[in-house]
Amino acid sequence: MIEPKLLKGFRDSLPEEELLRKTFIARIEAALRSFGYVPIDTPTLEYKEILMGKSGEETDKQLFTFQDKGDREVGLRFDLTVPLARFVAANEQHLVFPFKRFHIAKVWRGEKPQRGRYREFYQADFDIIGSDSISADVEILSLVMELLGGLGVHNFKIHANDRSLVHTIMEKEGLLEFESRILQIVDKIYKIGAEEVERQLCELVGETHIPALAFLTKGITNPSEFFAQIKNKYELNNIRLEQVYQVFQARNLAHQIVIDPAITRGLDYYTGLVYETFLDDALSLGSISSGGRYANLTSLFSKTSHSGIGGSIGLDRLLAYLIEKGTFAGTQAHADVLVINFSEQDLPLYCNVAAELRKSGLSVEVFPGQAKLKKQFSYADAKRIRFAIIMGEDEIKAGKIKVKNLAAHEEKVFASVQEFILLECAWQKPPKTLPT
Amino acid sequence: MIEPKLLKGFRDSLPEEELLRKTFIARIEAALRSFGYVPIDTPTLEYKEILMGKSGEETDKQLFTFQDKGDREVGLRFDLTVPLARFVAANEQHLVFPFKRFHIAKVWRGEKPQRGRYREFYQADFDIIGSDSISADVEILSLVMELLGGLGVHNFKIHANDRSLVHTIMEKEGLLEFESRILQIVDKIYKIGAEEVERQLCELVGETHIPALAFLTKGITNPSEFFAQIKNKYELNNIRLEQVYQVFQARNLAHQIVIDPAITRGLDYYTGLVYETFLDDALSLGSISSGGRYANLTSLFSKTSHSGIGGSIGLDRLLAYLIEKGTFAGTQAHADVLVINFSEQDLPLYCNVAAELRKSGLSVEVFPGQAKLKKQFSYADAKRIRFAIIMGEDEIKAGKIKVKNLAAHEEKVFASVQEFILLECAWQKPPKTLPT
Repeated sequence: MIEPKLLKGFRDSLPEEELLRKTFIARIEAALRSFGYVPIDTPTLEYKEILMGKSGEETDKQLFTFQDKGDREVGLRFDLTVPLARFVAANEQHLVFPFKRFHIAKVWRGEKPQRGRYREFYQADFDIIGSDSISADVEILSLVMELLGGLGVHNFKIHANDRSLVHTIMEKEGLLEFESRILQIVDKIYKIGAEEVERQLCELVGETHIPALAFLTKGITNPSEFFAQIKNKYELNNIRLEQVYQVFQARNLAHQIVIDPAITRGLDYYTGLVYETFLDDALSLGSISSGGRYANLTSLFSKTSHSGIGGSIGLDRLLAYLIEKGTFAGTQAHADVLVINFSEQDLPLYCNVAAELRKSGLSVEVFPGQAKLKKQFSYADAKRIRFAIIMGEDEIKAGKIKVKNLAAHEEKVFASVQEFILLECAWQKPPKTLPT
Repeated sequence: MIEPKLLKGFRDSLPEEELLRKTFIARIEAALRSFGYVPIDTPTLEYKEILMGKSGEETDKQLFTFQDKGDREVGLRFDLTVPLARFVAANEQHLVFPFKRFHIAKVWRGEKPQRGRYREFYQADFDIIGSDSISADVEILSLVMELLGGLGVHNFKIHANDRSLVHTIMEKEGLLEFESRILQIVDKIYKIGAEEVERQLCELVGETHIPALAFLTKGITNPSEFFAQIKNKYELNNIRLEQVYQVFQARNLAHQIVIDPAITRGLDYYTGLVYETFLDDALSLGSISSGGRYANLTSLFSKTSHSGIGGSIGLDRLLAYLIEKGTFAGTQAHADVLVINFSEQDLPLYCNVAAELRKSGLSVEVFPGQAKLKKQFSYADAKRIRFAIIMGEDEIKAGKIKVKNLAAHEEKVFASVQEFILLECAWQKPPKTLPT
């Protein structure tokens, strides 16, 4: 006998959990599709050389790598960004640019497993590649808004910044040499607090510069005023972040955007707009969607430069929040209707009734076997099934259908399957037709 | 620069292909859900010992196995059956039996790559575990029928057999010692022909037994007559395969079932009903859905015995056939509508119109950047987008919307977004609401 054990950091997904995850991912994909993003897929295994890129020992430690039977050094992907870069470089001539893709798939990291952290988990990424335009910046933020709105989440703020604006201010202030160290300090603001950040900045650049760096530590309460001030102070014509912000002002959506120069994200990668998203009533979850603009996605793999902007959804965090809110209550029912199996002699009738109900978009089981009634009803309860169809000898003789509403503990008799559907299934899903 | 190359036997999935596959898999999942099957998931990586089970060198050669950084012998799953057995043994107490699950996921095999054969591919499995009943046998065949019917495929035959019936006949004929060798020969009938099978059988068991084995080689044209004959000849009371067949006779669906004793499937594993499914107009594709009844799924991992019946869909084969038939024509459009971007000054308007259209279930892009009109239209063509919304200076002044039907090369002017939706988008998908 072999013990049916799992590897450390890996887990099974039971039906209730998997039903939730599938419903949730389908909703996210629908939102991405509604903006014209299209799915791609890449192999689970890639050459280790490609996965590693320029990364160092830390990544190597986390990677699941091995020598395959052809003596190639290979590994399981640890994110969806490196495979995207490889994909774009390899398939350039087959893609339509600006290329808007999404990818929701598993990745693997050999990190020390912790509570809620696994070695196999999902990532959900979306990108517009091949557009430097403000339109693309606006779209990424609009997408996050409509995606969350579509899930019934309205109490969130998108914290947005522009790395190039911060860069310009550093330049004008003569602090360019300190830029990356300043950003490293500011990046810790939500952990160590504004006061400590200010102290460390003071230590780094001296007290005289602190007033000019206040925008990084104090927060911005009035963005329009802030933009006017720095345009005036540094003699700037246009501020791209302001132009993006103004689109949301014009659309009456600016209340969901916080201009937040403390958002820095990865130091090497992002070059323009960067954003993180926080839920008003669940700040402790951290950002549920983050991303930004990069100057060149494919520098490792191609001579052609591909700039773009992208983001990701923190699937696990957001799903945990939505479950808590009850957004997906009811999606864990295994079926809508159970046809009680009194006698396998009557299987043709049970099957025909089930088939007719399915045509109306219902999910229907015929109990597999002629078990005791009590057992069949507790099966329905355990699977959260709503209705039981009772066609015993009497009902069959009378040509009627008895239906028990299992939640309401109510029985009703109908003249036909169609009558039951008409009178009791107003909540039913629409019939599943082929997309046209 | 690193060459963006793929491992041998692995491939990228470009948007057109991935859109098709996702639409197709969603349809199959909907059919499985309509029968009350629920999804599960298992880890990509498992202990090698678990994956290998009792299999020998052949499986070992095909497995992607390695030592992980904790010195554990691990491997990528090579099918979904071994993980299911491990899953059921490990989670017994959390499952509702009879347990009806499906699992559509990738598996990996280090086979020599051939045309149309990859080292990473999808499997789609469904099972009822914990039911010995005829109802379960009937359900598996009904499911295959409704699933194919739902995809618009009606010209198929399910070839069904019962391993226990063949076993009984062997016993009655005194041929039990030859059973597995007889089945090995019969299994080749579609490759080597009935005549050669008969010759080999004759060589094995002698000429006197050949008439009694004719049912294995000659095909059965009249199942009812066949069942009557063997009941009479061997003094059998009930033939389970006949009981299953009679359900489909009563439902007027027997014309889609062929009683075919030459169907044997895996010799060690299956113990009851076995089936394969062939398309009348594409026999050369081979079986597009196969499966059968087994006596004990979890013998390797648990003292509790779990019998059941299951099947799988040949996703790649069936999808290739449906694409050929044009079933999924139109699903490769990246979006329904492109809003032309004349000037980023008007982004708030473009975004608002796009948001309004999305509320009606349409997929809408705003062109990312103010490129030349010609470029924007060829972008729409390349992405198979149906409508372009034209809101230039004149239209904005007049408060109208001009829409170009890109397939029909027709322009029309509408007073509002709603008028356009009402008059031109009768084909639109229903608005995406949360399932209740």
